[in-house]
Amino acid sequence: MSKTNAGFFFEDYHIGQVIRHAVPRTVGSGERALYHALYPARHALYSSDAFAQGCGLAASPLDDLAAFHVVFGKTVPDVSLNARANLGYAEGRWVMPVWPGDTLRSESEVIGLKQNSNGKTGVVWVRSRGINQHDEVVIEYVRWVMVKKRDEAAPAPETVVPDLKPVLDVSDLAIPEGLNFSGYDFGLAGEPHRWGDYQLGETIDHVDGVTIEEAEHMMATRLWQNTSKTHFDGTMRDDGARLIYGGHVISMARTLSFNGLANAQMIAGLNGGAHANPCFAGDTVRAWSEVLDKAETGAPGVGAIRLRLVATKGGAPFTLRGEDGKYLPHVLLDLDYWALMPM
Amino acid sequence: MSKTNAGFFFEDYHIGQVIRHAVPRTVGSGERALYHALYPARHALYSSDAFAQGCGLAASPLDDLAAFHVVFGKTVPDVSLNARANLGYAEGRWVMPVWPGDTLRSESEVIGLKQNSNGKTGVVWVRSRGINQHDEVVIEYVRWVMVKKRDEAAPAPETVVPDLKPVLDVSDLAIPEGLNFSGYDFGLAGEPHRWGDYQLGETIDHVDGVTIEEAEHMMATRLWQNTSKTHFDGTMRDDGARLIYGGHVISMARTLSFNGLANAQMIAGLNGGAHANPCFAGDTVRAWSEVLDKAETGAPGVGAIRLRLVATKGGAPFTLRGEDGKYLPHVLLDLDYWALMPM
Amino acid sequence: MSKTNAGFFFEDYHIGQVIRHAVPRTVGSGERALYHALYPARHALYSSDAFAQGCGLAASPLDDLAAFHVVFGKTVPDVSLNARANLGYAEGRWVMPVWPGDTLRSESEVIGLKQNSNGKTGVVWVRSRGINQHDEVVIEYVRWVMVKKRDEAAPAPETVVPDLKPVLDVSDLAIPEGLNFSGYDFGLAGEPHRWGDYQLGETIDHVDGVTIEEAEHMMATRLWQNTSKTHFDGTMRDDGARLIYGGHVISMARTLSFNGLANAQMIAGLNGGAHANPCFAGDTVRAWSEVLDKAETGAPGVGAIRLRLVATKGGAPFTLRGEDGKYLPHVLLDLDYWALMPM
Repeated sequence: MSKTNAGFFFEDYHIGQVIRHAVPRTVGSGERALYHALYPARHALYSSDAFAQGCGLAASPLDDLAAFHVVFGKTVPDVSLNARANLGYAEGRWVMPVWPGDTLRSESEVIGLKQNSNGKTGVVWVRSRGINQHDEVVIEYVRWVMVKKRDEAAPAPETVVPDLKPVLDVSDLAIPEGLNFSGYDFGLAGEPHRWGDYQLGETIDHVDGVTIEEAEHMMATRLWQNTSKTHFDGTMRDDGARLIYGGHVISMARTLSFNGLANAQMIAGLNGGAHANPCFAGDTVRAWSEVLDKAETGAPGVGAIRLRLVATKGGAPFTLRGEDGKYLPHVLLDLDYWALMPM
Repeated sequence: MSKTNAGFFFEDYHIGQVIRHAVPRTVGSGERALYHALYPARHALYSSDAFAQGCGLAASPLDDLAAFHVVFGKTVPDVSLNARANLGYAEGRWVMPVWPGDTLRSESEVIGLKQNSNGKTGVVWVRSRGINQHDEVVIEYVRWVMVKKRDEAAPAPETVVPDLKPVLDVSDLAIPEGLNFSGYDFGLAGEPHRWGDYQLGETIDHVDGVTIEEAEHMMATRLWQNTSKTHFDGTMRDDGARLIYGGHVISMARTLSFNGLANAQMIAGLNGGAHANPCFAGDTVRAWSEVLDKAETGAPGVGAIRLRLVATKGGAPFTLRGEDGKYLPHVLLDLDYWALMPM
Repeated sequence: MSKTNAGFFFEDYHIGQVIRHAVPRTVGSGERALYHALYPARHALYSSDAFAQGCGLAASPLDDLAAFHVVFGKTVPDVSLNARANLGYAEGRWVMPVWPGDTLRSESEVIGLKQNSNGKTGVVWVRSRGINQHDEVVIEYVRWVMVKKRDEAAPAPETVVPDLKPVLDVSDLAIPEGLNFSGYDFGLAGEPHRWGDYQLGETIDHVDGVTIEEAEHMMATRLWQNTSKTHFDGTMRDDGARLIYGGHVISMARTLSFNGLANAQMIAGLNGGAHANPCFAGDTVRAWSEVLDKAETGAPGVGAIRLRLVATKGGAPFTLRGEDGKYLPHVLLDLDYWALMPM
């Protein structure tokens, strides 16, 4: 019998199953530096211990998306090795900060199953959790993927489609213990715009563009211990290109959004997201945002802002879908998230 | 009104203005490792805590140029976003070492202004300072840039051209507290040549060459949080190339100069520098040096050596200017600095 | 006289000579993160402090091969700058783990010399040792290289060919103090296969492939402070390609071997190895392994497994040599090592 990991097929999942993912990971100063080398990351709370302390935290945590990628990467060998498509995200919550020196592992619970009518594939919903060395959940999110069946003759499971919130309520968001933006230093943060300055429906073109190289996205994806072959093996396509991990585009867009959203410091919730088109080396990624909602959090000086973040590889800003309702070919990502911002 | 940063234009500056730059940065083991991955850095004092302790320091500090790039990067959004040209450097001083765990921020004071006769641009001189979490200045330097006017009709400011030292005197240099080269280990440092072995006018061909890749210079420049579009956005030129940050060439040349100047351990002063020609991915960078001056410092065993450091992308070593007095096309950098060396 | 390092030539070596290599190096969190960004490293003991502590160690050590590369890199200026070929390795032992914060230096003792019959080159055998800040040997290995003579007329030294073990005995292996696999967590490690599940002669195709970029192998090789020009200078070949450091291929193959050998946690011995063919950017590296031997170690729950690790850039798995006995052109590496695995 082969000793290599063949991954899970559709019929290997059952409702309530908890998969404990392999390879825990201790994160530290090295991951922070690499995150800043791979993305134009400038949010001050993740760049400076002194700034984070001025916001009531013990130190600068690992970037929210770096923590997400670490947790996500561990799920890949068990959730998406035989996936045909990454269909969606929901109910993503950053429950507590990840500190340098923390060790993260991941678990996923199967919460939905639905065989496709072709009998060859099915949709699997999992709720994945990142857990630190104190057995505390630091991140959780739902994603669903289309997975191949090993044996097309295997019987279809009972269909269970989970009831997922289309948007998290502000009361669902976890505010890091001690977070206090009442003495927030807008000068050091880089922009004067506070929560009250953003209007519902406002759109922001983040202007800057970054052309992506193969070495960069592969280094990032490996750092998250994401093992999906398609990101690394140039023999899978005639042109030698490697499909870029969707999370690389998320991080690139989020860090580009600093220019106009420098004070959307912390990501607190992920409502949903779609990888609209594939991204390849040579693409120049740009981003724009739209303010979808705003809410108070109760924490001192801390407002919540719900943002659409769109990454593109061309096209005009603020264009998203064609007349047919489909994403335009230059759209890479359409993400819906909650961030915490000084009021 | 757009929320993105449009940068400063010439008429936004006034003499005495102090600009507090955004995004403080905590540096550590990750930055050191990346510096060694991006450049062939081998100066022992920055590679080994034990070696640095043998020289009287508490630990191995962050490489002098890494510290410079961090401080410089913060100034870019306010000083050079609308710059047409980086005209020069002067009076650069490394005032104290930057230790792992330090948090750096930057400030710039406007010390000179001169509108150009075309009425469209002007020259701005700033003295920039890198400041640590104890509010101590760790680095300071003057640079001047040519900046666009937003409104050509805006009145010209009174011309103020600062009186800058063409060369720092050895008494201007800050010697790190406790630095002591009297027990210096030449064997571990990599070369036997001490301060007394270098002659005024001596030239050294550093021999080795490094061919630069897009991914490398972009990772370096992002790590310093330098936001200049021209280094990242491949759509700005027809060939997709990105202009390489001048500081990347400085670090490449300085680290290549190890081979022949392994004992020029610490950079203490920057007298001046010119980015003679642009550098692009695919260029193979080489370096040569010329001994311009030598002086004693008074610290135990510590001599100062003034060096010209020239980076090239071809051509014969020791060629610098053509008959017309202009830099030859293969010259990338002409830098004039003071280093500290065991006597 | 030139101040740059010309390296050692064959006649510069003599039996018993100890060369103390330059540029000690402190390693830490940054090196660990970069190792994980440059290679698909997933062995849990090197990824997680918590996992390592569960195996009786104080923390997660620096990856065995990262430690090897740091030690090896220091030897390059003195051993292989004028080498024509890297001929072999033997008697490699990982004597104790390298911890974050350790400072490593290297020494080599000349243990063999044999001038070639052409009178132009000779073979030099050295035993190199990596030594930490407590003057403890952490790694030692023998390698032999073919080195040019400076002066062909120089007399040949007496021939001394060292008596090297073709394979280390299990009793030669150093087991890290405290190592205990009796409570080993196979779930977190990523595979259920234990020492007893592997059969002599068993072969494992590690399936995954990684296409290599210039930026990646240069960053890795610089991080190890390996100064060999051929890895960095694109002007040495007409096609601009840079010969990839053999150690990069070793690390790539070893990390790819996780898929099927996730529990071969620690490398304890290097019996031998050949770089069968050169590797260049654009090559897609794959790996396969063969179980050569197994032995008990006496440490709780710790078995030793002797593995052949073969890296390829194409071809079918498990093919190694042609009918002429020579390595097939797609074979990059043939390595023979001992690893420690839970029983």
